[in-house]
Amino acid sequence: MAQKNKSSEKLKELGKKIVNDIDKNKNPNLEIPIRALSNIVYNKKTKTLELGNKTANRYFFNIAHAKKFLQTVEVASILKKELLDTGKHEHLRGVFYIAKRTIPETNINLVDDQTESDKIIEDLEVITGLSREQLHVSANKMGSMVGSITLVDSGDTIDCSRLGKGGYSIPSITDELDFKKVDAKYVLYMEKAAIFERLNEDKFWRKNNCILVTSQGQTTRGIRRLLQRLAEEKDLPIYVLCDGDIYGAYIYSVVKYGSIALAHASGRLTIPSVKYVGITMDDVNKYDLKKQLIKLTDQDLARMKQVSEYDWFKDNKDWQRQFKMMKELNGKVEIQALATKGVSFISEKYLPDKIKNKEFLE
Amino acid sequence: MAQKNKSSEKLKELGKKIVNDIDKNKNPNLEIPIRALSNIVYNKKTKTLELGNKTANRYFFNIAHAKKFLQTVEVASILKKELLDTGKHEHLRGVFYIAKRTIPETNINLVDDQTESDKIIEDLEVITGLSREQLHVSANKMGSMVGSITLVDSGDTIDCSRLGKGGYSIPSITDELDFKKVDAKYVLYMEKAAIFERLNEDKFWRKNNCILVTSQGQTTRGIRRLLQRLAEEKDLPIYVLCDGDIYGAYIYSVVKYGSIALAHASGRLTIPSVKYVGITMDDVNKYDLKKQLIKLTDQDLARMKQVSEYDWFKDNKDWQRQFKMMKELNGKVEIQALATKGVSFISEKYLPDKIKNKEFLE
Repeated sequence: MAQKNKSSEKLKELGKKIVNDIDKNKNPNLEIPIRALSNIVYNKKTKTLELGNKTANRYFFNIAHAKKFLQTVEVASILKKELLDTGKHEHLRGVFYIAKRTIPETNINLVDDQTESDKIIEDLEVITGLSREQLHVSANKMGSMVGSITLVDSGDTIDCSRLGKGGYSIPSITDELDFKKVDAKYVLYMEKAAIFERLNEDKFWRKNNCILVTSQGQTTRGIRRLLQRLAEEKDLPIYVLCDGDIYGAYIYSVVKYGSIALAHASGRLTIPSVKYVGITMDDVNKYDLKKQLIKLTDQDLARMKQVSEYDWFKDNKDWQRQFKMMKELNGKVEIQALATKGVSFISEKYLPDKIKNKEFLE
Repeated sequence: MAQKNKSSEKLKELGKKIVNDIDKNKNPNLEIPIRALSNIVYNKKTKTLELGNKTANRYFFNIAHAKKFLQTVEVASILKKELLDTGKHEHLRGVFYIAKRTIPETNINLVDDQTESDKIIEDLEVITGLSREQLHVSANKMGSMVGSITLVDSGDTIDCSRLGKGGYSIPSITDELDFKKVDAKYVLYMEKAAIFERLNEDKFWRKNNCILVTSQGQTTRGIRRLLQRLAEEKDLPIYVLCDGDIYGAYIYSVVKYGSIALAHASGRLTIPSVKYVGITMDDVNKYDLKKQLIKLTDQDLARMKQVSEYDWFKDNKDWQRQFKMMKELNGKVEIQALATKGVSFISEKYLPDKIKNKEFLE
């Protein structure tokens, strides 16, 4: 059965459960796993941020719950009828507008603000165990991919080794992509599109037989899921390339362990095997980049304190050492600083050496 | 002669001119068109923001000019040797790092901050008459394209009608793309990638024989140049789809007339023939979207006052009418509001009708 039918079935079950409650003269209710910090645990074994097993009940006959109960049922109905049953996808903002109806014979809108419908969609994720993507709801489209991979996207076969300087534009939902042929030995993911363009122009992926992925901005769910699928289904190592600062470390940690906001989706997003390739404070010494350091701000230091105390960082000696060096050098370093060694130093020397010598942080 | 050789020659001429000054015992100088607001004019005939003809001289033997003179010569040398002569491209940030050298036998850096090297690159654009792209300097990579167009990018032939839901990821420099086969009747450019995904999933471009382009964020120079080239070289109408607010109006005006910051590059970026397809205040009435209006903030009103008084808006009766309606309705409207009429209303009804009936704003 196609995923959209499976998802549709799950929502139908939810509706049946409520009808059942009504038939039995019970107060209709929904049991919802709690998504607050109090119910988020770092699982040391699987190395992911996960939801605990605390749940809450949402009742129809309860003044404090009634509106949210109605929102949940209505949004579930929209997702089933408008999206899953038609095979269409809609963005969070579009779902909000569809849900923004006036409740008949009242002046009350079902939802007034997008945060309300967004939360309901997250509730439906945890209630059904389906991801937002499986419910056909998308968010930002971002990022590009090139390299030794051929995939099928909506019936089109796309060879990512023949897409010039531009590359394949990654869709917001990557669950439905089909990996047809993957010759690459690893995937290199970088936040900065500038570096992606540098490496692509140098045909780094051809010389090193790999896949390049960039986001230009935050790592979207679509990109995280794409990387996870390449790691799990194609057994590819995933290497992350970020700036040598606390934000780079955090970007890496989200790809590896997950984030607090999306702990309920960890299973479909995190990649415990991912490795950090650079740029590190050791690189600053090794490649003589001290002059390229940018002084830490108070904000950097405050964020570093916070991040270094997270459960998933606090026992990690290698990263704690990095944080210590940042403080001692009182500086952070950007990937682009490598350009001082020559425009193509990063693709001809820096990355091949680091990857060959397995100089990674875990 | 390839563009990179032409660009390299231009920079060589610049160097020769300086050597010539030195040989003649003249104070070496560079004449630079002024890029301040005082030298920016709106040309009503060509409908573009342009630089006037005021210039300034930058002398080597002048304490106030010497550092900038040196920066100009050094950055010109970097662009020639490291980029044009090798055929490579580098981002603004990378050029900054390459230029960030200590001047020998001093403690002074050639540049300390990226704004310095960015300004020098703009100076070199106006001095040489070459665009930043022709000097092989890039900025943000952003945006996607799908539709009835086949192009050649760095030797790869790319059919944008066979790239699934993702599409072609637009590179930061689009000057070098080759349009091999264009069947489309028009180009639809939209700021929001969410709308792009909606239209692409509905195969709007196939049913309406067009090209879809999105930026997800500001319209980069690469996208503006791409649209301009499609308008000029392929004689395609370009339609812009934005939110019905003052920011949407401004995005449209930048694509059409140019911007103050990039007035010196207008010739290579503006598209006087571009038309605005929606969403308008008239659509709010016609499609019964009053309930979807979002109340104007003080910021919206202040920006509307500013934009409506710009030379390129103040005599435009159609736009002034839109601004008046926004004020009267005290609201703005998002493209996604059309989802209240059905997920695919935009692709099946709204856009086909508006384009067929030529309901455009100019």
